[in-house]
Amino acid sequence: MSLVDEIIVPCCLIGLVAAFAQFLVIRKISLTPNGNLSTSLTSGDAPEKLVPEIYAKIMDGAIQFLKVEYAICCLFCVLFSGVIYGLVSWGTHSHTQGALTAGAFLTGAFTSMLCGFLGMMIATYSNARTTLACAHKGYTEGFNTAFRGGSVMGYALCSLGVLVLWVLLSYYRKVYPEHDDWEILFDCAAGYGLGGSTVAMFGRVGGGIYTKAADVGADLVGKVVAGLDEDDPNNPATIADNVGDNVGDIAGMGADLFGSFAESTCAALVIAAAAVEGSDNTLSVAGWDAMLFPVAISAAGIVICILCGFFATNISPVKVEADIEKVLKVQMVLTAILMLPVIYYLAVLLLPAEFRLEGVRLTESGNQAKIHGSPFKAFICATMGCVGGLIIGLVTEYFTSHSFIPTRELASACKFGTAVNIIQGLALGYKSCIVPVFVLSSAIFVSFQLCDLYGIALAALGMLATLSCGLTIDGFGPISDNAGGIAEMALFNPEVRRRTDALDAAGNTTAAIGKGFAIGSAALVSLALYGAFVIRLRVKTGVNILEPTTFAFLIIGCMIPYWFAALTMKSVGKAAGEMVAEVQRQFSMKDSKGKTLLTGSTELKPDSKTCIQISTQASIREMVAPACLVILSPLAAGTFFGVQAVFGLLTGSLGSSVQLAISMSNSGGAWDNCKKFIKNGFSDDVELRYTKNPQTEEEKKAAPKAKEAHDAAVQGDTVGDPFKDTSGPALNIVMKLQAIVSLVFAAYFAAINHGHGLVQVQ
Amino acid sequence: MSLVDEIIVPCCLIGLVAAFAQFLVIRKISLTPNGNLSTSLTSGDAPEKLVPEIYAKIMDGAIQFLKVEYAICCLFCVLFSGVIYGLVSWGTHSHTQGALTAGAFLTGAFTSMLCGFLGMMIATYSNARTTLACAHKGYTEGFNTAFRGGSVMGYALCSLGVLVLWVLLSYYRKVYPEHDDWEILFDCAAGYGLGGSTVAMFGRVGGGIYTKAADVGADLVGKVVAGLDEDDPNNPATIADNVGDNVGDIAGMGADLFGSFAESTCAALVIAAAAVEGSDNTLSVAGWDAMLFPVAISAAGIVICILCGFFATNISPVKVEADIEKVLKVQMVLTAILMLPVIYYLAVLLLPAEFRLEGVRLTESGNQAKIHGSPFKAFICATMGCVGGLIIGLVTEYFTSHSFIPTRELASACKFGTAVNIIQGLALGYKSCIVPVFVLSSAIFVSFQLCDLYGIALAALGMLATLSCGLTIDGFGPISDNAGGIAEMALFNPEVRRRTDALDAAGNTTAAIGKGFAIGSAALVSLALYGAFVIRLRVKTGVNILEPTTFAFLIIGCMIPYWFAALTMKSVGKAAGEMVAEVQRQFSMKDSKGKTLLTGSTELKPDSKTCIQISTQASIREMVAPACLVILSPLAAGTFFGVQAVFGLLTGSLGSSVQLAISMSNSGGAWDNCKKFIKNGFSDDVELRYTKNPQTEEEKKAAPKAKEAHDAAVQGDTVGDPFKDTSGPALNIVMKLQAIVSLVFAAYFAAINHGHGLVQVQ
Repeated sequence: MSLVDEIIVPCCLIGLVAAFAQFLVIRKISLTPNGNLSTSLTSGDAPEKLVPEIYAKIMDGAIQFLKVEYAICCLFCVLFSGVIYGLVSWGTHSHTQGALTAGAFLTGAFTSMLCGFLGMMIATYSNARTTLACAHKGYTEGFNTAFRGGSVMGYALCSLGVLVLWVLLSYYRKVYPEHDDWEILFDCAAGYGLGGSTVAMFGRVGGGIYTKAADVGADLVGKVVAGLDEDDPNNPATIADNVGDNVGDIAGMGADLFGSFAESTCAALVIAAAAVEGSDNTLSVAGWDAMLFPVAISAAGIVICILCGFFATNISPVKVEADIEKVLKVQMVLTAILMLPVIYYLAVLLLPAEFRLEGVRLTESGNQAKIHGSPFKAFICATMGCVGGLIIGLVTEYFTSHSFIPTRELASACKFGTAVNIIQGLALGYKSCIVPVFVLSSAIFVSFQLCDLYGIALAALGMLATLSCGLTIDGFGPISDNAGGIAEMALFNPEVRRRTDALDAAGNTTAAIGKGFAIGSAALVSLALYGAFVIRLRVKTGVNILEPTTFAFLIIGCMIPYWFAALTMKSVGKAAGEMVAEVQRQFSMKDSKGKTLLTGSTELKPDSKTCIQISTQASIREMVAPACLVILSPLAAGTFFGVQAVFGLLTGSLGSSVQLAISMSNSGGAWDNCKKFIKNGFSDDVELRYTKNPQTEEEKKAAPKAKEAHDAAVQGDTVGDPFKDTSGPALNIVMKLQAIVSLVFAAYFAAINHGHGLVQVQ
Repeated sequence: MSLVDEIIVPCCLIGLVAAFAQFLVIRKISLTPNGNLSTSLTSGDAPEKLVPEIYAKIMDGAIQFLKVEYAICCLFCVLFSGVIYGLVSWGTHSHTQGALTAGAFLTGAFTSMLCGFLGMMIATYSNARTTLACAHKGYTEGFNTAFRGGSVMGYALCSLGVLVLWVLLSYYRKVYPEHDDWEILFDCAAGYGLGGSTVAMFGRVGGGIYTKAADVGADLVGKVVAGLDEDDPNNPATIADNVGDNVGDIAGMGADLFGSFAESTCAALVIAAAAVEGSDNTLSVAGWDAMLFPVAISAAGIVICILCGFFATNISPVKVEADIEKVLKVQMVLTAILMLPVIYYLAVLLLPAEFRLEGVRLTESGNQAKIHGSPFKAFICATMGCVGGLIIGLVTEYFTSHSFIPTRELASACKFGTAVNIIQGLALGYKSCIVPVFVLSSAIFVSFQLCDLYGIALAALGMLATLSCGLTIDGFGPISDNAGGIAEMALFNPEVRRRTDALDAAGNTTAAIGKGFAIGSAALVSLALYGAFVIRLRVKTGVNILEPTTFAFLIIGCMIPYWFAALTMKSVGKAAGEMVAEVQRQFSMKDSKGKTLLTGSTELKPDSKTCIQISTQASIREMVAPACLVILSPLAAGTFFGVQAVFGLLTGSLGSSVQLAISMSNSGGAWDNCKKFIKNGFSDDVELRYTKNPQTEEEKKAAPKAKEAHDAAVQGDTVGDPFKDTSGPALNIVMKLQAIVSLVFAAYFAAINHGHGLVQVQ
């Protein structure tokens, strides 16, 4: 084992152990009610009896969905690995290379599925326990349980991802032991990133449609069937809604970020391994330690996040409601700050004092610029990403949390009705692009200047270095959301619901922050992959955007995210419609006494299974078209119009996806929190303080206006649902997946028609 | 006078005469009621008495707005012409060139203002007359009056635009008579395009905010104050709303398309005049006739449109309601078809059999490709634009007219409430980008291959060749809309309102078609200008998108349209709020008998003047920031980061603006027509057939659901208002204006720091 292996392996093992330890702590909370409930907040012990039943239903639904989804994924991946094997073998004239790439693809795909599955399991495992912890022990334990649930996922996913990649690379190194061949080695390894991202695409899109079909469906039922509460136990769609939170936000988000991590690492490796003409001073010559520097960053990040996580749960735990958001934010900032010296240390330790890199920049005269790297430059690049991610996260928080002006202004706009809420919410989303884009472009500008595309890959890795922490916070959200749902369905005391709601509200904001991170890193990753693709093709003249093919495909590329969003949003609408029809069918059924579910039938029970099936089937059916659009578009462009077309497509898609993803996620997040703001009466503005049963004179006077504002806010939230949980975050994967597909098939593109497309004018 | 002059000047004069002739026909309809009203549909002669009063108010409001707007425009233009003079003189070391550019800028700006003013005058002049024609003479005369009103604007604007440009060029030719200097000549002339576009920016943004502040304000008042009709005569905001239609759609749209025409012509001239190394076989050597070929296309188009217009009003006039849309569509198709042989004839007549062009394409090895043009190639390029524009227009119609599936589906979605309507409407807009983008990219691909950037400029001109027809149809919309408003306010018989509504509905769809044209041509124009900019800078190595500065600014460029949309949408919300407050103030005022406006006060009158003032002031105040964002961003990028930054900015902005503009315009158009579809009970679906006073048993049963769907549709329409009339169409100007600013300041950018930016890393 060389030096870098000695860093990577122990870090990953520590991560796995930490995940298991956290799991053991969660397991201590028993779901079956025991005798010690006298001190609880519940009026009887009925809620505790309902919890295991609801828990089992959610768990069942989640497993049922994953089974179907992963069956489709497996089928697709096996077929697609055949395509990869065929085209890569043909393009490289090497069956070994084809087989290794396909193998890496399958490894990536299965690792991603495994991570998604584990994440789902632990999240579902933790949600009911969070409810109970909130009910019996208050904020500290409630928060800690949800946080630990998230962290099991965060630590396990990162450790597994890094470890499997390391095993894969170590194994492939045996096939290509000479550093002259490493270019091929890492080319094959790029399949790992593609596998991760392909599963992520299915996870994000399928999960996104699932969760929002259920959520929008449940909301609409509430509207159509009059005054039903969001988590009313009689509404059979609510279980599907709760399953959906896990499916979309845990499995989907986990797979997404796993994909980003895998891809940015692969991009860094491919770029680092690219042959530099007339130079022995490259990273591949410097050896294994230098090459695996990016992987080491990710591994070290896990340990940092574990240390910081300990701070949140034990050293400075949550005591009152107001602590929740603060503690989560401290996590983000702390991990980012602690990460910086570690990155510097690793750079000095692993990288040679000076090295040359293959790049894509040109000099004034149109020749390739010479790129010289150093540990310090590499450190700065990673820092740009790490700090940039933090700023993007904080800006996202500013725009989506109801502690700040934008969402409060949005709440005020609700007084003028739905339309104004929608207009202002969309404007808010558009506006929220400004700072993140400036941050991203600064990060790109600086790291590109310093280390060319290797710098971009490092910036992406820097942003993802604190991934375990990001995933923890990200998992925290849906766990809390579910905990709230369970509290409502199990008819807990309102105080319990208040506690879970407080966790949920904080989780919502932090989920938005996580999305900000995911989008920012996706943009950098895509650029790094795009660059790796250009380097891999040995294009020495840059990418001239003013070529007929390139420019024509640039605007097509810009359009792809819109096409994708249209497909996914329509799917949500359609699936939600089916859900509403099913619920209405159940509500119209009468038992032997002529009573329905809503009029207090004792014989009928809400049939959540059918609802889960509807969501599952709809999402599986609807996820194929958008996924194919993304995967096939670069393949088709490259096959028929040549690599110039792919360049245009990637450029346009990247630029357009970033904006659309940020604005959609933030509009959706703001609408959600705006609704919470009005609903929970956090506001100082009496007119907005909505209460179901107004008591005081002041409340009664404001009631009609508050009701109207509340209705407007609910409509906004429903519009925001597919924005923030289906289309928006899936756009990350659009840009990444298109780029990695191009990279993996680079040899094929180069081989077919010698880099020219089949279609030629003149 | 050379050959081309003999084509251009008579065509323009014919256009002016035709416009005046149409005006004389409209003038025959007298506004003052005469004795022959016995055959009319009105129950008394009261409505006819109200018409002149309302007409005067709208006319006053329109003039008042234009006065203030043009005062600001003049101020800005005079100041900015100073900047142009200074920077261009400094960059080119020639005061003559600076002065000529600034002069061209002022000429363009004032021509644009003159056109806007004339358009507004004639539209306002025609609207009340259209109402009367509908009331007394039925569909044929109603349609013809509105159509003639539009065509006065269409013919006059095009003729003036072409004629002034021709005079300007002929004059400048005296300063630079040698064809060696023509590069400088047309450089100076580019100022004309910049002037047109600058005024268009103020017109579109100012007008857009004005019209939607009034419209949304009036809608909201209806909501807030309970059951008030859109054009209720008691609502003081309605006059402002009607003024707004003219201000936004006539003055704004006219200036926008005038700008497109001026800019595409300038781009073609600059590209054609660019020196080609080692070749005497260029267009500038071929002489004045060859150079002015693009202008000849525009001039000939005017005559074609006049001939076709005669077909609509006299040969095959509108007889029944169903004819309206058909006749308008025939206009579009007919003009496009007739245009093609004319373009071919002009190309053969004016262009040399073979010519060389300066281009930006590179060969495989990174050298500049040689571009050979021919009349046939030029014809194909223009055809791509002409036919492409038609297809984009028809696709736009498909997505926004309630005769087709998408808008009908949207109407069905309204049954599920506002949120689903919004989600599906946004998805519809996104989806509607697909075909137009493929059409645009095909046009770009083919014309770029054939004639490099000159081909792109020709494609843009081809799309704009039928501009007079486009403007006619475009003017038709707001005139009909106003006519409807006047019918309602003057308390005409519902049958009259039905007729004006039918005109309005057709006008709405065709306005959407016009917007499609405007966006498509704007995309081509921007690309042509961008190319002219690159050629002007003599960049021989293409635009490498994978440069740090270029890529960093690419994503900033992609963000600019979002920033711009956020600014304009927020402005609408803010201004609409002010309007609501004012109307509420007026409604709460009590007269001496304690009655208010709404409870039948005879003393109080709705004070529409104050409402007009609010809209005017808000739009003037709010239009400055977005305009500055657009104009200053390329200047700042070029000054501090060099031309590479400008390249990135333009690329990103173009790609992103196209999508956002198309999707916003079409979502808005679809929502508008969806509302009309439900409101007018065109639907076969009983549940959707909304009637204010349900009569039959069937209607009564469906009433609650229909009411809900109607409410959802109204909300959608309100959201769509700023989409389709403020932000969406103004995005055209974002891309064009950024490109022409860059072109005009090219010499300055090149001079400052020798093409490098001031900011350098390393």
